[in-house]
Amino acid sequence: MNFKIANDTDRMPLPVVKAMGILKKAAAAVNVKFGLDKVKSEAIQKAAQEVIDGKLNDSFPLVVWQTGSGTQSNMNVNEVISNRAIEIMGGEMGSKKPVHPNDDVNKSQSSNDTFPTAMHISAALEVTEKLIPSIKKLQEALHHKSVEFKDIIKIGRTHLQDATPLTLGQEFSGYSQMLINGIARIQDTLPRLTQLAIGGTAVGTGLNTYVGFDVEMAKEISNIAGVEFKPAANKFEALASHDALVEVSGALNTVATSLFKIASDIRLLGSGPRCGLGELSLPENEPGSSIMPGKVNPTQCESMTMVCAQVFGNHTATTFAGANGHFELNVFKPVMIYNVLHSIRLLSDSCDSFREHCVVGIVANEARINKLLNESLMLVTALNPFIGYDNAAKCAKLAHKEGTTLKEAAIKLGVLTSEQFDEWVRPEKMLGPVPYVPKK
Amino acid sequence: MNFKIANDTDRMPLPVVKAMGILKKAAAAVNVKFGLDKVKSEAIQKAAQEVIDGKLNDSFPLVVWQTGSGTQSNMNVNEVISNRAIEIMGGEMGSKKPVHPNDDVNKSQSSNDTFPTAMHISAALEVTEKLIPSIKKLQEALHHKSVEFKDIIKIGRTHLQDATPLTLGQEFSGYSQMLINGIARIQDTLPRLTQLAIGGTAVGTGLNTYVGFDVEMAKEISNIAGVEFKPAANKFEALASHDALVEVSGALNTVATSLFKIASDIRLLGSGPRCGLGELSLPENEPGSSIMPGKVNPTQCESMTMVCAQVFGNHTATTFAGANGHFELNVFKPVMIYNVLHSIRLLSDSCDSFREHCVVGIVANEARINKLLNESLMLVTALNPFIGYDNAAKCAKLAHKEGTTLKEAAIKLGVLTSEQFDEWVRPEKMLGPVPYVPKK
Amino acid sequence: MNFKIANDTDRMPLPVVKAMGILKKAAAAVNVKFGLDKVKSEAIQKAAQEVIDGKLNDSFPLVVWQTGSGTQSNMNVNEVISNRAIEIMGGEMGSKKPVHPNDDVNKSQSSNDTFPTAMHISAALEVTEKLIPSIKKLQEALHHKSVEFKDIIKIGRTHLQDATPLTLGQEFSGYSQMLINGIARIQDTLPRLTQLAIGGTAVGTGLNTYVGFDVEMAKEISNIAGVEFKPAANKFEALASHDALVEVSGALNTVATSLFKIASDIRLLGSGPRCGLGELSLPENEPGSSIMPGKVNPTQCESMTMVCAQVFGNHTATTFAGANGHFELNVFKPVMIYNVLHSIRLLSDSCDSFREHCVVGIVANEARINKLLNESLMLVTALNPFIGYDNAAKCAKLAHKEGTTLKEAAIKLGVLTSEQFDEWVRPEKMLGPVPYVPKK
Amino acid sequence: MNFKIANDTDRMPLPVVKAMGILKKAAAAVNVKFGLDKVKSEAIQKAAQEVIDGKLNDSFPLVVWQTGSGTQSNMNVNEVISNRAIEIMGGEMGSKKPVHPNDDVNKSQSSNDTFPTAMHISAALEVTEKLIPSIKKLQEALHHKSVEFKDIIKIGRTHLQDATPLTLGQEFSGYSQMLINGIARIQDTLPRLTQLAIGGTAVGTGLNTYVGFDVEMAKEISNIAGVEFKPAANKFEALASHDALVEVSGALNTVATSLFKIASDIRLLGSGPRCGLGELSLPENEPGSSIMPGKVNPTQCESMTMVCAQVFGNHTATTFAGANGHFELNVFKPVMIYNVLHSIRLLSDSCDSFREHCVVGIVANEARINKLLNESLMLVTALNPFIGYDNAAKCAKLAHKEGTTLKEAAIKLGVLTSEQFDEWVRPEKMLGPVPYVPKK
Repeated sequence: MNFKIANDTDRMPLPVVKAMGILKKAAAAVNVKFGLDKVKSEAIQKAAQEVIDGKLNDSFPLVVWQTGSGTQSNMNVNEVISNRAIEIMGGEMGSKKPVHPNDDVNKSQSSNDTFPTAMHISAALEVTEKLIPSIKKLQEALHHKSVEFKDIIKIGRTHLQDATPLTLGQEFSGYSQMLINGIARIQDTLPRLTQLAIGGTAVGTGLNTYVGFDVEMAKEISNIAGVEFKPAANKFEALASHDALVEVSGALNTVATSLFKIASDIRLLGSGPRCGLGELSLPENEPGSSIMPGKVNPTQCESMTMVCAQVFGNHTATTFAGANGHFELNVFKPVMIYNVLHSIRLLSDSCDSFREHCVVGIVANEARINKLLNESLMLVTALNPFIGYDNAAKCAKLAHKEGTTLKEAAIKLGVLTSEQFDEWVRPEKMLGPVPYVPKK
Repeated sequence: MNFKIANDTDRMPLPVVKAMGILKKAAAAVNVKFGLDKVKSEAIQKAAQEVIDGKLNDSFPLVVWQTGSGTQSNMNVNEVISNRAIEIMGGEMGSKKPVHPNDDVNKSQSSNDTFPTAMHISAALEVTEKLIPSIKKLQEALHHKSVEFKDIIKIGRTHLQDATPLTLGQEFSGYSQMLINGIARIQDTLPRLTQLAIGGTAVGTGLNTYVGFDVEMAKEISNIAGVEFKPAANKFEALASHDALVEVSGALNTVATSLFKIASDIRLLGSGPRCGLGELSLPENEPGSSIMPGKVNPTQCESMTMVCAQVFGNHTATTFAGANGHFELNVFKPVMIYNVLHSIRLLSDSCDSFREHCVVGIVANEARINKLLNESLMLVTALNPFIGYDNAAKCAKLAHKEGTTLKEAAIKLGVLTSEQFDEWVRPEKMLGPVPYVPKK
Repeated sequence: MNFKIANDTDRMPLPVVKAMGILKKAAAAVNVKFGLDKVKSEAIQKAAQEVIDGKLNDSFPLVVWQTGSGTQSNMNVNEVISNRAIEIMGGEMGSKKPVHPNDDVNKSQSSNDTFPTAMHISAALEVTEKLIPSIKKLQEALHHKSVEFKDIIKIGRTHLQDATPLTLGQEFSGYSQMLINGIARIQDTLPRLTQLAIGGTAVGTGLNTYVGFDVEMAKEISNIAGVEFKPAANKFEALASHDALVEVSGALNTVATSLFKIASDIRLLGSGPRCGLGELSLPENEPGSSIMPGKVNPTQCESMTMVCAQVFGNHTATTFAGANGHFELNVFKPVMIYNVLHSIRLLSDSCDSFREHCVVGIVANEARINKLLNESLMLVTALNPFIGYDNAAKCAKLAHKEGTTLKEAAIKLGVLTSEQFDEWVRPEKMLGPVPYVPKK
Repeated sequence: MNFKIANDTDRMPLPVVKAMGILKKAAAAVNVKFGLDKVKSEAIQKAAQEVIDGKLNDSFPLVVWQTGSGTQSNMNVNEVISNRAIEIMGGEMGSKKPVHPNDDVNKSQSSNDTFPTAMHISAALEVTEKLIPSIKKLQEALHHKSVEFKDIIKIGRTHLQDATPLTLGQEFSGYSQMLINGIARIQDTLPRLTQLAIGGTAVGTGLNTYVGFDVEMAKEISNIAGVEFKPAANKFEALASHDALVEVSGALNTVATSLFKIASDIRLLGSGPRCGLGELSLPENEPGSSIMPGKVNPTQCESMTMVCAQVFGNHTATTFAGANGHFELNVFKPVMIYNVLHSIRLLSDSCDSFREHCVVGIVANEARINKLLNESLMLVTALNPFIGYDNAAKCAKLAHKEGTTLKEAAIKLGVLTSEQFDEWVRPEKMLGPVPYVPKK
């Protein structure tokens, strides 16, 4: 091999190998209609199924940093499957008989259309089978917390400064919505991602293949993969550009901005135990300091935010690669699918980890939340209708100056009684719009 | 002002000002149902219409680098509109009577929900009124070229190396498809972008506004803007995160990868006049060198590729800003909308310029294209069925070695006649898949 | 003009125009040695000085999105200077006599070497005259605060969790050091940035210029600009690549990471007034809420962090553009210098604004800082040598469980007296390493 | 473990493990001066040497996506080394006797200062031992080609359009210079990268360590590593910010722009064999198409450009992570060093691969180069002094119109003879500046 580049760490991702297996299995099935011997087809399908099942993973040692068309990966899979099919049929491995890697396994195909087809299959499967379910489960966990916390009223914060109140449930409902939107964002890229280049062969024309091959392949691949695929609307586009992957990467990038924000907020709300905001207690996963109780490092938040940083970087790499194709072939295929699959994997795993080891175990420190709410000066706005704007302002100023509560200041100023304060200042009345009642 | 930061160049984009005008006009209309005096409402609506029409642009000197909530821009528009409404009603400007900037113009609103509402309105309008039409026209121009060039057969190129043929029309059809996809990508972000934060007020709860205000606002804004908007599914999300803008930016980023690729290809195909590929002649826009005829710098391609680089950069800025919000408010609002609108503007203008000054004037150099096609060795694959693989290979090797054409080599080797060559080597037969005919 | 692309906002930056003036003035002076008439030279120098002084700025309407070589900007400056020189000499403007834009003003030059020369001059001047002084002043302001705060002991925070103490002065000394390093980072790029392409003419060979022209030009430009420049070590590199600008942009990117961190920390330390960390009070620049005293939005921090996001984006644009040159000329010159100068300007102005309107006015809330320090449980580590690890742990656990102070818990447990606690728990002893004293 | 995130692929890079070994060995040596038992020290040093030598790599299964401080990696190495030291001393593994992982191996240290120290050591070693030598060798190979090609005159290309000539050697000299500059760029970051956080312990104060420990550690690490390290100028900066890594990443990013440009140029110059530029023949590494001689895919160029895209992405990740630290500790440590080491590895390996399998085997197609040069119209500029500008323009226009050579056109126009053309049009006179000879 002429590519000794990070070859102990940067292997072609296994979902690409699996997708190649799906493609080759489908081709063997479809090619029977186009002249492939049935017995050979069955042997190839069996061998391809073993690739799908991961049984032959050790036979795919190729790294990402190879030919930009992924040619070597296609040749690799043709060789592995033909040899295994030969073995199944009782032939001599390496003899290319009775199953030829090119004439049979690669029949009606080219590296230039198979590799991008495998890129789309692998990304679509990873997105639908791993990523969306993982985001969904995290979203549901956040939604559950939103319901659990629906009656906990807390201080709002804008500009990191104290603001009017909301419930902790409302705050978490925003996080939940971000992920609902995130799933929609990813799903809205699927109409392009589920289009397949297969049938375009070397330059998109479909030379050396048959009319109808592309349609049959999309059907068969859909059957095997359990996700609906279609032939690409334009095969020239499908070989020359991988904008569909840049688009998916953009959706992943957006999901990462959501997750970064959610993890950062939770980390800040859990800061402390004494000298931070302290509104939340996060699960103590690692053996905590025995002498320093309450010091729980928000390691799941840290892992999540690191992952998001990586996804942002992977997106830059994907974008750069996607823009730099020439003529009939973009030759940044391996680096593009490597980054997209890396981001999918990182986000999927992190959503699971963050949900399981952080979100579900979050506990609201109600006493602390309530204390902060009541110490806040923002509730003064509730007094305007009763004591007038000027008196309300005086209360707030006095409380700020003397470091007391609003209530203490108001009573000291003699503008209301303790009972009146409690009646008029009701955070629970500040949590939503009110019905309009026309003045008479 | 405490922000003297690039204040001669980086003004808040005018589409934001226009969107603020739309929002304030809608609010004045809607607020009549919630207690606003009708006469004042009409004066405010007139003043707001002037903002929409750009008549008061000089009154909005604010720069991007201000408070991260856009508060100063909201206050600015409240002041300008109230003063102009006062003027319309015959009052004394600056007196806050009879139209008060906060109580009347900003009624039921907060900076924290108006500015993100204006962000979405401005981006949605710029996308639908400017960007998509501009991409569409460029796509159509490329499609026309695709039709015009449908019979011009040329050499394909993969890995920048000679490959099997396709038509120039097929090549351009790929470009056209990229932009069809690009429009779909942008449109698929609109379900999130057309959701409005209005009604959330300071922290998303809707404190100080009325039940139903958000729905009425979305309707009225839709009427004025001519684009369908809805209230945000979750107002906490709508203030705390601007993922919808990161998502749109991701779509713009993807469109830029397409345009970078198209402009790069056209530039390369037009390279020459003597020592490049020379397949296309690009329009000579600038006064060419009088002594150096044929040297036409691909300036439109250069401008387009520079614009794409900027869009990639703007996307990084938007992503970074989108990820870094805290709690109830993301305070990177101005930088986010500045970059998104910049990218929209650049892409819109560049699509127009590139179409008008480059694409429509592209001429295919048919003689050159034909010469390259016939000089190519890739056509040898057509000889396999007639003279066998081994003889075909001999022809190609001899031609390569001696620098002759395939035909010359084949005749020299005596494996066919000139007439046979012309009959068998038919590039026009290599442009698509063939119907399958089972062997008997 | 064929480039109607963001032409009301994206003008070629004025520092490029000024640099072109410096270059043309130098060329007029140097060219006397190579045959230029002395009288013409003096007229050109006078006209060029007016360009340097900004008197002719209105004559440079060109936008960034033009030819990628900046050719139009070079032609623009040749025209403006020749016409002004003609005017000075009493000739007829537009007649090209007695001063010809090409033969005289552009003598021994080409767009391809003048524009990159102006890129380097403008960036080097903006860096040395604006950016480094602005960073230096901010660093000094932070250093002054570090000294001012040297005796204020506060809780440290790692993972956003309470940690061992340090002084507020030590914390600020870290910020100061980041900027000291930032200046060194920028300065270490100058050996490449101060190399000039001039003398390379069209493709780097120096065709149509004279031996020694490059050296004389570098000397003369150094004299005029007040910064030391040298001829590029290799002119082919200097035209074909603008890696020196990518490098500078990388240094700016690093400075932005420092500033983002500093502004974020200060914003968090100033969060409150009641429900945040509240260790710092930031200056109240904008008219605060009259009813909500103490709510000071950290607008300078917000502006700074937005600027940093933009610098990160500009760096991506610059990198992309820098990588995509072809053969003898990189044709992303305008977008590269636009982004680099934008970042320099933004950082310079923001350092000034942040220093003047934020840093110098920061006040430490000593009571709050002290309260947090004493409430913290981290001081328990100081008790180990006196009451043993196990008893210390018991104190901390009890305090955490019951929400009391360490001291209260320790006394309750009966492991020490109040006086002993005060003697043994001395945060001021926890601020540095101790001298090693061998045990006997 | 609570972090099942890409745990089969994203292991903590081995150079970090090695650097930890160096650090722990140095600490064991230094700590003898601060009370550590000599016998234990020697056992620890032996064990640490085995970590350095990679003998214990299997004991470090940790992944990147863990605590953001790298705490788990520090604990991992303490455990592994203490156990191995216990084994060496004949103790019972797991007993923590006689060598305690915390009290002995981690003596005077904290995760918070050891991990950043290991980050700097590993990056500095990888840069100096691998990356710079690999770049240097590639630069020398390009320089050798520059010398080899010094007499081959070729057409220049600007804007991808034909321009005035240069030698192929001059073109390659630009590539060589880019890498000379690249090495300088990297070296100029070392003054910051070789500063070590060790001695700062948990928050930068150096609590629990001794005066002088940091200086001794830097000396000892320098001895072991063979690279000169110093204590950080400010330990608070060294824990709270990792700008030094962002800076190094920026230098790598710049080197990648150079390499992207070089690989792109070489790929384009090697395009063909018939229908591209065809000026260079690249080595045929993979078994070429037997039937399609001359089709050599530029796979090394493709691999290199993919690597550069990854480096750009890694830089975005590193920048994002570097900006988002809080207070006394940046908790994006693992993702930062992962990306920086990945970029270093990719660039090192790619420089080697590209040099060995591409650059050294490049052959100039002199016939093709010469043909293009002579067909070009750019040489017409050489005729100006002899037949005048107007006649020269006529020649060029006729040649362009009729598709003939300049010479043919000139002779047809009767403005010169064949002999005169050959005498006057001398590309070898167009390769540099000329000495100035004053007119008399």
